[in-house]
Amino acid sequence: MTARTPRYSGVIPPVVTPLTADGEIDRLSLERVVEHLLDGGASGLFALGSSGETAYLTPARQDEVIKVVTAASAGQVPVLVGAIETTTGRAIERARAAEALGADAVVVTAPFCTRTHDTEIDRHFRDIAAALDVPVLAYDVPVCVHSKLDPELLLPLAADGVLAGVKDSSGDDGSFRRLVVGARGLPDFSVLTGHELVVDAMMLGGADGSVPGLGNVDPHGYVRLHEAAIRGDWTTARAEQDRLVALLDIVRAARPGTASATAAGLGAFKTALMLRGVVATNVMSPPMRRLDEAETAAIAACLDRAGLSRS
Amino acid sequence: MTARTPRYSGVIPPVVTPLTADGEIDRLSLERVVEHLLDGGASGLFALGSSGETAYLTPARQDEVIKVVTAASAGQVPVLVGAIETTTGRAIERARAAEALGADAVVVTAPFCTRTHDTEIDRHFRDIAAALDVPVLAYDVPVCVHSKLDPELLLPLAADGVLAGVKDSSGDDGSFRRLVVGARGLPDFSVLTGHELVVDAMMLGGADGSVPGLGNVDPHGYVRLHEAAIRGDWTTARAEQDRLVALLDIVRAARPGTASATAAGLGAFKTALMLRGVVATNVMSPPMRRLDEAETAAIAACLDRAGLSRS
Amino acid sequence: MTARTPRYSGVIPPVVTPLTADGEIDRLSLERVVEHLLDGGASGLFALGSSGETAYLTPARQDEVIKVVTAASAGQVPVLVGAIETTTGRAIERARAAEALGADAVVVTAPFCTRTHDTEIDRHFRDIAAALDVPVLAYDVPVCVHSKLDPELLLPLAADGVLAGVKDSSGDDGSFRRLVVGARGLPDFSVLTGHELVVDAMMLGGADGSVPGLGNVDPHGYVRLHEAAIRGDWTTARAEQDRLVALLDIVRAARPGTASATAAGLGAFKTALMLRGVVATNVMSPPMRRLDEAETAAIAACLDRAGLSRS
Amino acid sequence: MTARTPRYSGVIPPVVTPLTADGEIDRLSLERVVEHLLDGGASGLFALGSSGETAYLTPARQDEVIKVVTAASAGQVPVLVGAIETTTGRAIERARAAEALGADAVVVTAPFCTRTHDTEIDRHFRDIAAALDVPVLAYDVPVCVHSKLDPELLLPLAADGVLAGVKDSSGDDGSFRRLVVGARGLPDFSVLTGHELVVDAMMLGGADGSVPGLGNVDPHGYVRLHEAAIRGDWTTARAEQDRLVALLDIVRAARPGTASATAAGLGAFKTALMLRGVVATNVMSPPMRRLDEAETAAIAACLDRAGLSRS
Repeated sequence: MTARTPRYSGVIPPVVTPLTADGEIDRLSLERVVEHLLDGGASGLFALGSSGETAYLTPARQDEVIKVVTAASAGQVPVLVGAIETTTGRAIERARAAEALGADAVVVTAPFCTRTHDTEIDRHFRDIAAALDVPVLAYDVPVCVHSKLDPELLLPLAADGVLAGVKDSSGDDGSFRRLVVGARGLPDFSVLTGHELVVDAMMLGGADGSVPGLGNVDPHGYVRLHEAAIRGDWTTARAEQDRLVALLDIVRAARPGTASATAAGLGAFKTALMLRGVVATNVMSPPMRRLDEAETAAIAACLDRAGLSRS
Repeated sequence: MTARTPRYSGVIPPVVTPLTADGEIDRLSLERVVEHLLDGGASGLFALGSSGETAYLTPARQDEVIKVVTAASAGQVPVLVGAIETTTGRAIERARAAEALGADAVVVTAPFCTRTHDTEIDRHFRDIAAALDVPVLAYDVPVCVHSKLDPELLLPLAADGVLAGVKDSSGDDGSFRRLVVGARGLPDFSVLTGHELVVDAMMLGGADGSVPGLGNVDPHGYVRLHEAAIRGDWTTARAEQDRLVALLDIVRAARPGTASATAAGLGAFKTALMLRGVVATNVMSPPMRRLDEAETAAIAACLDRAGLSRS
Repeated sequence: MTARTPRYSGVIPPVVTPLTADGEIDRLSLERVVEHLLDGGASGLFALGSSGETAYLTPARQDEVIKVVTAASAGQVPVLVGAIETTTGRAIERARAAEALGADAVVVTAPFCTRTHDTEIDRHFRDIAAALDVPVLAYDVPVCVHSKLDPELLLPLAADGVLAGVKDSSGDDGSFRRLVVGARGLPDFSVLTGHELVVDAMMLGGADGSVPGLGNVDPHGYVRLHEAAIRGDWTTARAEQDRLVALLDIVRAARPGTASATAAGLGAFKTALMLRGVVATNVMSPPMRRLDEAETAAIAACLDRAGLSRS
Repeated sequence: MTARTPRYSGVIPPVVTPLTADGEIDRLSLERVVEHLLDGGASGLFALGSSGETAYLTPARQDEVIKVVTAASAGQVPVLVGAIETTTGRAIERARAAEALGADAVVVTAPFCTRTHDTEIDRHFRDIAAALDVPVLAYDVPVCVHSKLDPELLLPLAADGVLAGVKDSSGDDGSFRRLVVGARGLPDFSVLTGHELVVDAMMLGGADGSVPGLGNVDPHGYVRLHEAAIRGDWTTARAEQDRLVALLDIVRAARPGTASATAAGLGAFKTALMLRGVVATNVMSPPMRRLDEAETAAIAACLDRAGLSRS
C-alpha cells in the first residue's frame, strides 16, 4: 500500500453558525467557536455544511460566515467552505464567492431539488472544478440531496484530479469502505467520514480523518480519538468513541413530534455550546424553533455524564 | 356546496425557460413562449417552476426571467412566480425580489436540503406570507423537495388566509381529492393540479384548474380540455386528455440510462417547442445535456401523431 | 376505439376476513360479508387481498377463507383469490391451492421480501400463468411489495395472454392512465382500480371497474357510483364519490402513534361492519390490536354522517 | 464494562441453499457446504436467511433444508434457522416447524407485506417468543422487510428476555453502534453484524460476531478476521477485511440491467462455491436466472486474485 499523503486529514469539524436573538450571524460567538475548535486540535474547519445551517442562510449571510471563519482561523488550518446549491451554475456562483473570500477549498453536493443521474452528477463536478482555482471536495449527503455518490462515480473523478477528497455523510459504511480500498492508489485524495458514531471504525478501515458534527461540542474528544487511531491504539480510540456515542444522546432531548431531526440535532449542538459557554444563544434559523428549558436541562445532564465542563 | 370563486383557475402553464446556445436566457424565445401560451388561452402563467428550470438558474437569471415574462404578458393574465429556495429566509428573499419585479403571486415549496417536520413547514408558510404583500401558493412537489403537503397541513393555512392556493404536483390524487373536498368551504382558495396525465379526472373531482408542464407544448389542447370540463362535456374532456397522454410519450425519447428524468422531460418540452418554431434551441442548463438528433426525430414523430403543427 | 369486453368489471370488493374473539376465521360473519356485498351489487369478489388480511393468515386459514367465500357466493359472481407469496414457487403453490378450492382467477403480486428486477417480475408472472388453468391478474401494490408494475411491463404480458387483468393499488394514477390508454387494443384485459378515493375519476379515464376496500363498508355506494359512470352521469358519480371520500375518514379514527396505517384502515373497515351488524367482532390478526371504544364511537359518527344504517 | 458471555458469537455464516438443475434442494451439495463452513471454523450456522434463498423456498423445501443442515452439522455448532414470514401467526407456524426439526434458535424479522408500526413489531416479537421453547433472534433487514429495528425497540426486548440476540443486516452502522453500547449491561445478548464489508470495524465497536453472506465463499477468511479481532490484532483483522472487500467484487459480475441485486449477489456466491468445488451447480430459484459463462469467468478471476483455491 502506498503511503497516504492526503491534503486534508485529522478532525475537521463542520462549524456551527451561532445566531443572535434576532436571527443575525453572531460574529463574536462564531469567533469563539473557531477558537474552541482550534483549541481542541482541529486540523481544519468546514464552514457552511449542514451543521452550519447552510441551507438556512442567504448568500449575504453565508459570505459573512466565511469572512468571520477565515479571519478567526487566520491561516492556522485550512478552511473548507460549502457551496451547497441546487445545480451547477448556482454552485459555481457560490463557490467563486467562497474562493474570493479566502476559502482554501470548496465542498459541493450532487444536484438537488431536481431528479438527477450519474452522468449529470459527473458533469456537475467536472464543470465546477473547471471553474475554480481551489480544490473541490464532494459532499455525500443523501439525507439532504437524495442522491448517493458511489465509489464507481467518485474514484474516476479523483483519478482525473477533479476531486481532492470526499466528505461522506451517507451513513453507508460499506460504500465508504469500498471507496477507501479503491483510493489506495490515490495517496493525495482525502477520504473523510462524517459518520460521527463510528469514527474509530472508519479510521480502522482507512479513513484519513473525520468531519463530525458532534465535534463542535467536544473537539478534544474527537482529536484524542483520531490520535489514538493514528498510533494504532484502538482500545483508547474505541473507549473515546463509546463516550462520544453516549454524548450524542443530546440529539434525543427534543420532545418527539415537535421538531425535525435537523432541528433536534443542530439544536442540541447549539444548546451544548451555549451551556459550555462558547456561544451566546441556542437560536436557530426559521422555521426551526430553539430548544426550551426542559430540553436544555436534558442536554446539560448528558454533558455532565460525558465529563464535559460547563460554564 | 358554495359556488367557487378561486383567484386562480383555468390553465396556468409552468413556463419553460429557453436558453441560448451559450446558456444565457434567450429573451426573444421566452417572449415567444409567453405569446404562444396566451394565444393558446392560458389564464395565467407560472414562471420559475420545475419546468422553468428554476433550480438551475442563478438569482440574477431568475430576475431576468421574471422581467421578460411580466413584460411580455403585460397584465393580460396573472403571473405566478416560483420562489423555490431551501428554507424560510432564503425563500423570502427570492419572493420579495419577485414581488418587486411585478409578480402577481409567489409559489413556495416546503423546506428542502434539510430534514423538516410539519410543525416547521407550517411556520415556514406563515413566516413567508407575513413577509409579503402578494398572495402565496403552496407548491406540493415531493419529487423535488421530498416532503408531502397533506390536506391536514394545507387546509388550516388556507382557512387562516396564509395560502391563496396550491399547485399539486405530488401525483397523489387521493390526497388531492381530500384537499378538494376539504376546500369546499373555502371558495377563494385555488386548488390546481400539476398532474398533466389526468387533468380531466382531477377536474371531475373538483380542481379549479391545472398547471401542466406539457401545456407548454400544447396549450390549446389543455385549454380545450379545461373548457369541456367546465361545461360538463366529459366525453370531449376525456378524448382531449387521451390525446395528450399519447403526446406525453415525448418524454420517453431520451435514450435510457443517459439522462435524468428531469432532463428527459424538460428536454422533450424544449425540443418540441423548437420543432414547433417557438424557441430557437433545445439547450438545457448544465449539467443536463440537450437531446440529440435521433431523440429529436422521435419527438417530431410524436408531434405528428398528436396532430400538432411543426414549423 | 375497440369496444371493451373485459372478463372482470364493475365493483369487486376485496373481502375482509372476520375473526372470532380468539382469532379464528369467523365463518358465519364471513358468509354475512359475502351476502352483504352481493346484496350491494358486487359483480365479483376478491378474497385474500390486503383488505382480507392475507399477509396475516396461515395457508390453512387461507384455505378456509376460500372455501367459505366460494360456497357463500355459490357461483353468482366470479371469485378472485389472492396468492400473495414472496416468490414464484411459493405463489404457484398457493395459487394451485386456490384453484383446487374453486377460485375463478388468482391475483398475484411482484416478488417481495427480496430485491427484484423487471426481468425477474416478467418471468415470475409467466411461470405462474404457465402453471395454472385459471386466469391470472397482477396486483400492483407497492406499499406492500415495494415494486411498481409499469405499463411497459404489464402491457406485453397482457398482449401475450399471460395476464387477464390488473388490480392497481399503486396510487399512481398517471401510470394507471397510461395503462388504460395502452390497453385500448386489448379489449378482454381488465383494468381495475383499487384507488377508492378517485374511482369516479379513474372510470372517466377508462377503468373497467374498481376493487375498493371501503366497498366492504358501503358496496351499494360504489355500485351506484359505477353505474352512474357507465351511463355517463358524471355528476351523480362525483357526488357519490365525494360522499365516500368523507366516509373514508373512518380510517383516521385510530389514535395517532398507536397503530400502523394497515391496522387503522382494516380496523376501521371491520369496526364499521360490526356497527352495521354484518360481522360479530372487530378483532384483527396479531400483532394488530382491535380498535377500542372511543375509536369505535368516532367511526359510528362517520357512518351516521354518511347516511349508513347501523344495527 | 461487564464481561460478555453471548450465547452466539464468532462467525455464523448464512448458509446458501444449493439447488439441482431442476430446482430441487441439492442435498449432497448442501452437506458439502456445511462441511466447508465447519472446516472453515464457523461457530454456528444460520439456515434459511436471505443468503439461503428463504423467500424462494416453499415450506416443504424449507423443512428439507433444516433437516439436512441439522443432520450434517450433527450438533457440532448451534443451528439458527430463519422463520421469515409476513406476520406473527405465520412466523410462529414456521418457527415451530424449525423447532421440531432441531433448530437451536430461530431468527425472525419484523412483519412485512403490510404497513407496520413499532408497537406492533414489539408485540410481534413477544408473541413469537412466548410460543416457542428455543431462543429467538431478531433479523434487522430493511432491504427485505422495509422496517428498521431501532435500539430503542430492541433493547427492551432484550432486557425482558424476549430476544436472545440480533442479526443486523441493516447497513446502518451508527444504529448498530448504539445497540452495542446499549447492550453493555446485557452480557448474554448476542449482537451480530451481517455487514460483511466492515466486520473488522464492527468488531472494534463491540460486535460479538458476524453473519457474513460472503462467508459462504471464504469462511476461513472471516474466521481469521474474527480471531484477529478477538486478540486485538487489528492490523491483521483489517488486512483480512480488505482482502474480503476485494473478493466481494464478485457480486458485480452480473451484467448490469439483467438481474436483481439479490440474483447478482446470491448468484455470485453460488458460482464461487461451484468454482471452488463445493456445490454442483449455480442454479437459483425462479424467477432468478443463473449466471452465465462470461459472468462465471469474471468470478473465477476474482477468486484467483483473492488467493482462493478452485477445484
